Amino acid sequence: MNQKHTSINSVGEFGLIERIRKICASVPLPPEIGEKIVLGIDDDTAVVRPSEHLLQLVTSDIMVEGVHFDLTYTSMEHLGWKLLVVNLSDIAAMGGIPLHAVITVALPAKISVEMVEAMYGGIAKAAETYRCAIVGGDTNTSLGNMTVAATVTGEVSESWLKLRSGAQPGDRICVSGDLGLSHAGLKILLREKERYLSSPGKDEFKPNLTPYTVAVTKHLAPRARFDVAQKIAGREWVHAMIDISDGLASDLRHICVRSRTGAHLDIDKLRIPEQVGTIAAELGEEPMDFVLYGGEEYELLFTVHPDAVGDIEQVAPEVSVIGTVTADAGKIELVRNNEPVKILTGGGYDHFRK
Amino acid sequence: MNQKHTSINSVGEFGLIERIRKICASVPLPPEIGEKIVLGIDDDTAVVRPSEHLLQLVTSDIMVEGVHFDLTYTSMEHLGWKLLVVNLSDIAAMGGIPLHAVITVALPAKISVEMVEAMYGGIAKAAETYRCAIVGGDTNTSLGNMTVAATVTGEVSESWLKLRSGAQPGDRICVSGDLGLSHAGLKILLREKERYLSSPGKDEFKPNLTPYTVAVTKHLAPRARFDVAQKIAGREWVHAMIDISDGLASDLRHICVRSRTGAHLDIDKLRIPEQVGTIAAELGEEPMDFVLYGGEEYELLFTVHPDAVGDIEQVAPEVSVIGTVTADAGKIELVRNNEPVKILTGGGYDHFRK
Repeated sequence: MNQKHTSINSVGEFGLIERIRKICASVPLPPEIGEKIVLGIDDDTAVVRPSEHLLQLVTSDIMVEGVHFDLTYTSMEHLGWKLLVVNLSDIAAMGGIPLHAVITVALPAKISVEMVEAMYGGIAKAAETYRCAIVGGDTNTSLGNMTVAATVTGEVSESWLKLRSGAQPGDRICVSGDLGLSHAGLKILLREKERYLSSPGKDEFKPNLTPYTVAVTKHLAPRARFDVAQKIAGREWVHAMIDISDGLASDLRHICVRSRTGAHLDIDKLRIPEQVGTIAAELGEEPMDFVLYGGEEYELLFTVHPDAVGDIEQVAPEVSVIGTVTADAGKIELVRNNEPVKILTGGGYDHFRK
Repeated sequence: MNQKHTSINSVGEFGLIERIRKICASVPLPPEIGEKIVLGIDDDTAVVRPSEHLLQLVTSDIMVEGVHFDLTYTSMEHLGWKLLVVNLSDIAAMGGIPLHAVITVALPAKISVEMVEAMYGGIAKAAETYRCAIVGGDTNTSLGNMTVAATVTGEVSESWLKLRSGAQPGDRICVSGDLGLSHAGLKILLREKERYLSSPGKDEFKPNLTPYTVAVTKHLAPRARFDVAQKIAGREWVHAMIDISDGLASDLRHICVRSRTGAHLDIDKLRIPEQVGTIAAELGEEPMDFVLYGGEEYELLFTVHPDAVGDIEQVAPEVSVIGTVTADAGKIELVRNNEPVKILTGGGYDHFRK
């Protein structure tokens, strides 16, 4: 092989996606096909117009055993539920509602028919909860790990479509619920797994999860926030929206990059949920790191016109205002009483850097 | 674990899909969502009506390293090409044309940025050839094998939609090209891999592929037969259609099961391509087995009204008429001069039975 070998680690997930985006965008297509793409690889979902009367959303997520889930502490029901929810959350963050899902799975020999049925039970439960039809897929063997993927389509009306690129300096930054819990829950699951593995009597081992139910549940069975998204997406004062899958700092950066803005996050407005406090203290870690960098929250992060702070409190009281969009492109800063505390660089989860 | 553990092997791929279908079909959905599904897990693609003015096709395929491809003899360009083509072939077999594709990949550390770019180069080439826009996807790490999946949407007009279930007794069975080549090509690639692995000077090893180019190319870089599909799908005399991914016998069975018919295959009409003959002779195997059971051909298998044999010869001269649909539900028979030669049972590729 004379070919150059650049490790994916060295360019990172977002570097790799940028290269893929270029290749996909360079495909010469006839205009009647090209004009059906409203937005390609650029946001939570692609936006297409397959017919004059339909603005459709398309999103896809793949989950790999050992990377995204661990069958020692993830039930097949939870796995199925989460697979669909992470995709639905992307639809919610665009202001859309789901239409159809297709599921593909690669199954190693250790997976039984009952386990597959349990997983599809979890998928079916999410489909029922969020009103999404499962219409197809593909099943195959895997020689290695279990891999599951879903593609979900949705629809959105033109005026409800909310992109990452819509933030404007002065906008207030809002978030739909508590942050840091999913990561805290993961930390507890990993600790209990360690205890299990080093326990002499494995059959008698009982994990200690009860005090951490809120955090563990948020990690294993997150919600898609259509409840909030559908109340706000129709409002013109909502300018930009994303769901928090990589972490607050990282997903706020996605908004800032696409909108060519910066942001101030007010440290006193960033609530530390009770179980995040408890868990961070037990583990000797900084709870604010969980809030800023913890991924897989699937809360909505969005920006609103500064005059709309009263509106948002009325329309969606579960939302907190946590900061302000600035004109200082690319600079994301923690502030207290408008005084700088810390500049946030990088942060968030990149699957290819460790 | 008190749960029952039924191995997937014991129910097979189609048994598993049947169980999954039941779970997905049982999801209670409001009528405005349910009525948008024209056809769920039942054919080459799902058929949905996301808006009044659009009949949309959705299909998904996952390909796993070591199961569907082997990086010792599959280039990344070929892998990308084939990933998209196997999905596009399903769209072709419904009578549709492609709209949009999303690609998900799980990449182990051995895969370089250049390899990923080469794979997307192959995907892009297929997208350009068959006029399909790549609009999104997901990239992730894998701790085990490489896994790639694609979901493709397409559109079809109501009268062009061709299902597996439309065959009628008396219909003539047609196929769009040569069969058995892909499997023959795979056998050669596997033989050369064995020779490579047992070769003392690996760096100097040169695989002997030149005499088998047609077969090897059909395996590594199959075509999606829109060229034929788009000439015939608009004709009312075409009753049922499928693409040959599992093998002629197996995919004909899919048509028969859905149409509640049987079939006669005329052994004298089943052409043995030259390289299938050569390769089978070299390997000491029966060439007709390649034609009947070889998978991954991506040719179109379809049935036409008996009066339309002249029409098909005129419209699509590359098509062969190879048999007749019978009323004998589920019985697929090889015949010669209308005399039975052999009843075909099972056959074709099932990913979970070995």
